[in-house]
Amino acid sequence: MSTSASGSPIRAAIINVTGYVGAELARLLAQHPAVEIVCVTGRSEVGKRLPNVFPHLWSVDLPIVADVEGDVDVIFSGLPHAAAAERLTPFIEQGVPVIDASADFRLYDEEVYEQWYGEHPAPHLLAQSVYGLPELHREAIAESRLVAVPGCYPTTTILALAPLAAKGWLGGRTVVDAKSGVSGAGRSLKLTSHFSEVDSNFSAYGLSGHRHQPEMVQELSSLQQSAESEAELNVTFVPHLVPMTRGILATCYPSISDGALPENPEERAAALRDAYESYYADEPFVHVAPAAPSTKQTLGSNACIVYPMVDPMTNEVMVISAIDNLVKGTAGGAVQCLNLMFGLPEELGLSKIGVYP
Amino acid sequence: MSTSASGSPIRAAIINVTGYVGAELARLLAQHPAVEIVCVTGRSEVGKRLPNVFPHLWSVDLPIVADVEGDVDVIFSGLPHAAAAERLTPFIEQGVPVIDASADFRLYDEEVYEQWYGEHPAPHLLAQSVYGLPELHREAIAESRLVAVPGCYPTTTILALAPLAAKGWLGGRTVVDAKSGVSGAGRSLKLTSHFSEVDSNFSAYGLSGHRHQPEMVQELSSLQQSAESEAELNVTFVPHLVPMTRGILATCYPSISDGALPENPEERAAALRDAYESYYADEPFVHVAPAAPSTKQTLGSNACIVYPMVDPMTNEVMVISAIDNLVKGTAGGAVQCLNLMFGLPEELGLSKIGVYP
Amino acid sequence: MSTSASGSPIRAAIINVTGYVGAELARLLAQHPAVEIVCVTGRSEVGKRLPNVFPHLWSVDLPIVADVEGDVDVIFSGLPHAAAAERLTPFIEQGVPVIDASADFRLYDEEVYEQWYGEHPAPHLLAQSVYGLPELHREAIAESRLVAVPGCYPTTTILALAPLAAKGWLGGRTVVDAKSGVSGAGRSLKLTSHFSEVDSNFSAYGLSGHRHQPEMVQELSSLQQSAESEAELNVTFVPHLVPMTRGILATCYPSISDGALPENPEERAAALRDAYESYYADEPFVHVAPAAPSTKQTLGSNACIVYPMVDPMTNEVMVISAIDNLVKGTAGGAVQCLNLMFGLPEELGLSKIGVYP
Amino acid sequence: MSTSASGSPIRAAIINVTGYVGAELARLLAQHPAVEIVCVTGRSEVGKRLPNVFPHLWSVDLPIVADVEGDVDVIFSGLPHAAAAERLTPFIEQGVPVIDASADFRLYDEEVYEQWYGEHPAPHLLAQSVYGLPELHREAIAESRLVAVPGCYPTTTILALAPLAAKGWLGGRTVVDAKSGVSGAGRSLKLTSHFSEVDSNFSAYGLSGHRHQPEMVQELSSLQQSAESEAELNVTFVPHLVPMTRGILATCYPSISDGALPENPEERAAALRDAYESYYADEPFVHVAPAAPSTKQTLGSNACIVYPMVDPMTNEVMVISAIDNLVKGTAGGAVQCLNLMFGLPEELGLSKIGVYP
Repeated sequence: MSTSASGSPIRAAIINVTGYVGAELARLLAQHPAVEIVCVTGRSEVGKRLPNVFPHLWSVDLPIVADVEGDVDVIFSGLPHAAAAERLTPFIEQGVPVIDASADFRLYDEEVYEQWYGEHPAPHLLAQSVYGLPELHREAIAESRLVAVPGCYPTTTILALAPLAAKGWLGGRTVVDAKSGVSGAGRSLKLTSHFSEVDSNFSAYGLSGHRHQPEMVQELSSLQQSAESEAELNVTFVPHLVPMTRGILATCYPSISDGALPENPEERAAALRDAYESYYADEPFVHVAPAAPSTKQTLGSNACIVYPMVDPMTNEVMVISAIDNLVKGTAGGAVQCLNLMFGLPEELGLSKIGVYP
Repeated sequence: MSTSASGSPIRAAIINVTGYVGAELARLLAQHPAVEIVCVTGRSEVGKRLPNVFPHLWSVDLPIVADVEGDVDVIFSGLPHAAAAERLTPFIEQGVPVIDASADFRLYDEEVYEQWYGEHPAPHLLAQSVYGLPELHREAIAESRLVAVPGCYPTTTILALAPLAAKGWLGGRTVVDAKSGVSGAGRSLKLTSHFSEVDSNFSAYGLSGHRHQPEMVQELSSLQQSAESEAELNVTFVPHLVPMTRGILATCYPSISDGALPENPEERAAALRDAYESYYADEPFVHVAPAAPSTKQTLGSNACIVYPMVDPMTNEVMVISAIDNLVKGTAGGAVQCLNLMFGLPEELGLSKIGVYP
Repeated sequence: MSTSASGSPIRAAIINVTGYVGAELARLLAQHPAVEIVCVTGRSEVGKRLPNVFPHLWSVDLPIVADVEGDVDVIFSGLPHAAAAERLTPFIEQGVPVIDASADFRLYDEEVYEQWYGEHPAPHLLAQSVYGLPELHREAIAESRLVAVPGCYPTTTILALAPLAAKGWLGGRTVVDAKSGVSGAGRSLKLTSHFSEVDSNFSAYGLSGHRHQPEMVQELSSLQQSAESEAELNVTFVPHLVPMTRGILATCYPSISDGALPENPEERAAALRDAYESYYADEPFVHVAPAAPSTKQTLGSNACIVYPMVDPMTNEVMVISAIDNLVKGTAGGAVQCLNLMFGLPEELGLSKIGVYP
Repeated sequence: MSTSASGSPIRAAIINVTGYVGAELARLLAQHPAVEIVCVTGRSEVGKRLPNVFPHLWSVDLPIVADVEGDVDVIFSGLPHAAAAERLTPFIEQGVPVIDASADFRLYDEEVYEQWYGEHPAPHLLAQSVYGLPELHREAIAESRLVAVPGCYPTTTILALAPLAAKGWLGGRTVVDAKSGVSGAGRSLKLTSHFSEVDSNFSAYGLSGHRHQPEMVQELSSLQQSAESEAELNVTFVPHLVPMTRGILATCYPSISDGALPENPEERAAALRDAYESYYADEPFVHVAPAAPSTKQTLGSNACIVYPMVDPMTNEVMVISAIDNLVKGTAGGAVQCLNLMFGLPEELGLSKIGVYP
């Protein structure tokens, strides 16, 4: 087993291991060469062994406890919003490194948070948090003790559009038509996750507004502003439910500012592709693909596959991106942040190769 | 068994019964109270009984023959383009009523056809054909002897946008992000229909241009022109493959001409809804739903469920529609045309209720 | 609309329309030419319109009420056991024809019922009830006012083995390895019906004993006894959950009494097949197929496809059968009983053709 | 990167990387810390880069060549039977270590091979080969240069029944009702792997005899004989196709020799469990579970989960086992053999934890 700077494994706790995010964190951390899971907490399942709740974790035989116990070097949280901030505040204030998969520390603007989630349990901590997308905030993550893992839709969408925003090329309306597997809705019981309702079925949802939209606007606007663009972003985001468990694919229809790209179709496509390839040249997990991706290419891996193109019928730009929502979209992104925070190789314990077919 | 005008059942032949369109025609016509299937043809399966090829048709025990034999009152064709026109031409010239599910008689402009499909085998017949979408061409279908059943994507999309086009409200760019089950790709063997490649997977395809786009433009432009709109339609159409067998859902993001709808969100939504409800008031199979549809609501039925709405984040109009691609999108649409052509009740032999769950 | 004996439609009520059995009854009865649904009841959804709960029933616009109201000619119940007997007792005692999809009136032996379901709410009514499998009890159903629709697993299994039992050929151990879609577990929320748990997954369940086993033993033993066999039936029944919504397939491994069938493999297969074909010669919905069935061949239809064969490796008899659990396995079987009870053609309102693919 | 005994990575070639077995070998070997893939061969895809054929392998950028080139320390073959022996013979004769996933070197009896597969291309090599199931042949594999990876069904079934056979407890008839995902049928195109045919569908197949049955008999009989049992094994093996991509679950109904286990149900269950737990006590990848497994618990991992139990209705023994057919059932088993052959830790490069959900 490899080690942290101090020579011994990083002792990690997982709060709320009994949801899908928690279980995926357990899957990844149990196989991470520099980490030892020392504590997992649950709510309803306290007292059981982890394999009794998740038989696929039969080789990770830990008791589920109510609260984080013993010495830990880092805390991962799979709690939902509000509950997360409440539970994590004491640890954050003690300076324990925290990687949170909820929405609580993602939105820098408290008012925007309140509009979507209600009152913030710990607004005084917002200034410390970093949006945990390494491709945009690598240095800040490495220096932070409070990392907010992005939502799964924002990860897919921001990585699809960041090279455009970083140039200030986004202008006017952007349509993001996103499609997700069912695990994104979590392990709790609801009719919209009932097998017989979802199987062989396809639908849009979240049509009255989805909480992930403001994250996209926050990060893309910030990139646009740093490129000194003054265009106001107008993002229509429509999520859809696909009859599969894992995977998100976003088909993005941005409006490109006049003059940003050549009008000649071939030159346009080449310039677009150049922008993506140079933006992601050194990224270990983002692949600018030569053809449109499919979600299963990323299953179980931390990869994000991005495909920018020019529509031959209309000369408009389109970008398609795909991830595994539970890995790059949550738990894998969290582990990537862990590696940065602890000075480990960024790829450690993470796979680039999907379990395909 | 009910009867045609003459008192005896309509004798129907199905050409190329061995594809999914042909099999679905057999399923519907075998249960149609005014029809008797008298002949089914195949290519590779000639000499077998129909139930040996399709065991679900065990109660429809007909031999598969090479050519249409005996007296028939109507011919349905499930052949692909080019092959269809070639095989059907003699029947059309003899005046036998023909309902064709291929692309051969859908595009009125021979040049557009050639751009997508190559040389047309029988361009002299184009003037006789009617685009077989009853909601747009009911009277013409009733009087025609050559009906071209629309493609599955155009049926979904045109029914989603027709109420806007009929008012002349479409302006500028329209994005149609469509998602289809795998049966739309037919029964022939290809890697993109291989179970292990499609299952638990989601992807876009047809990105270099899809043959169904010009049908949408033809019909929607025609509606716009009849409303004296001069806006040029710019349709970005991106199909996606869903890991399910049947069903199409189209999420449409039209641009609405300035001033066409009120800006106040509530008034805007109400005016939009009014336009749809009045346009489809008398349609037996189109349902303007109070919530977003899912594909399985239409499975096995001839229904098209349409949901127009205003995006609360951007005040833009969106329309979602869903059908069963093999029923309303092909074989059911064909039977609806048959009913019109033979003066039968339009709903005869067709269901409005999906096999759900 | 066709009519009942009296010339007007049969007025039907559906109790507990909000479960999958109730919804499927609504689907079938709404399209039945001799029936008018006059009343549907629910529990949690009282006050809503049926299409608000089940959008696929958009054309069946009835209010969901708390109790059966008005004059009805027949009552269908989709309530679970115990609740069904309690609610139905007054109607049964008034002589209203009742078709019950619960277990309450299936087991003739009150003690066996109590062993599996607890105290019976109305044991005095057991003597009136008929096990609603037309293939075994056609005449009794036609004369009864209380029909107990069989469970979905027993329908599949009994139809697979009845021709053997009716000859008295079953001897010793019979293994029934059954596989079901998820809709058999109903619409209520449980982790074992959660999409992410079931999708791309396969498992056995009910290993501590399944309530449907005694129904199989009751009916098969009764057939064996009428053939004067003295062999005691020993049925191992193991249900499995398939990642699909509808369909049951039972693979049955009976032990055949010595001497019942020839030992020569070809003669053995021929004699076996003869027994099945003659037993089911006049059945409208049971098809003795020339090859092994698949569940989707029956989807949405009332068919049961049975395939008896001799294992070439061991010369043992095996029988495979398939149905749609919600149609022939429940709601369709109920409608078939209705037709018998009201003197209608047995096939009325029911399909033999599955929605395939 | 870890190293082989000589200090440098093991140079591996994969023959026929373009099938699912080959692609899965590439997935595992690319992430194996002691291996470097130096050569991959294909047939139709020669000249392409591996990621063009399998985009999920985007980070494994190797050219696909026609033949094994350069120095290699071990050859893996994903060719089908006959082709495998022909291509591998020169390497075997040169003493290059070979791990073959075809059936060519699995059956020790040439006559049995010929009965199922036709003439053997290299019968003189049969004496050198070892059946590559580490749980049965660990020492022989470690010393062999020709390892025949078992079929996916035999792996599941033999591991389910080996503890019984090793005691000589199997007697009389054993029914193995097995269920597999579609990837077991490979990547080639056939109607039985067409998405629309398999999706939402379940069926038995291989009813005229399946090639994997003699492997089961060979290995289980050998164990029985070493326990001095004289019972002749009678194995009915029926495979079924599940609408999912990966995973095999076998439900086994063995007949237990009289007196082998106590009759008292509780004692019987305890003795049965003891036999399994002691047999598998030191196995890294076989887990004797406290409840019935599901296939997805093993997805992507090399685990085999086994659950022995006593049917409460009949007191008969049943055993359920589950694996990922492409990992423990083929490519993962192959890597486990590699580790043994090269003196590496047996678990190296393999996961015990499934990608769940």
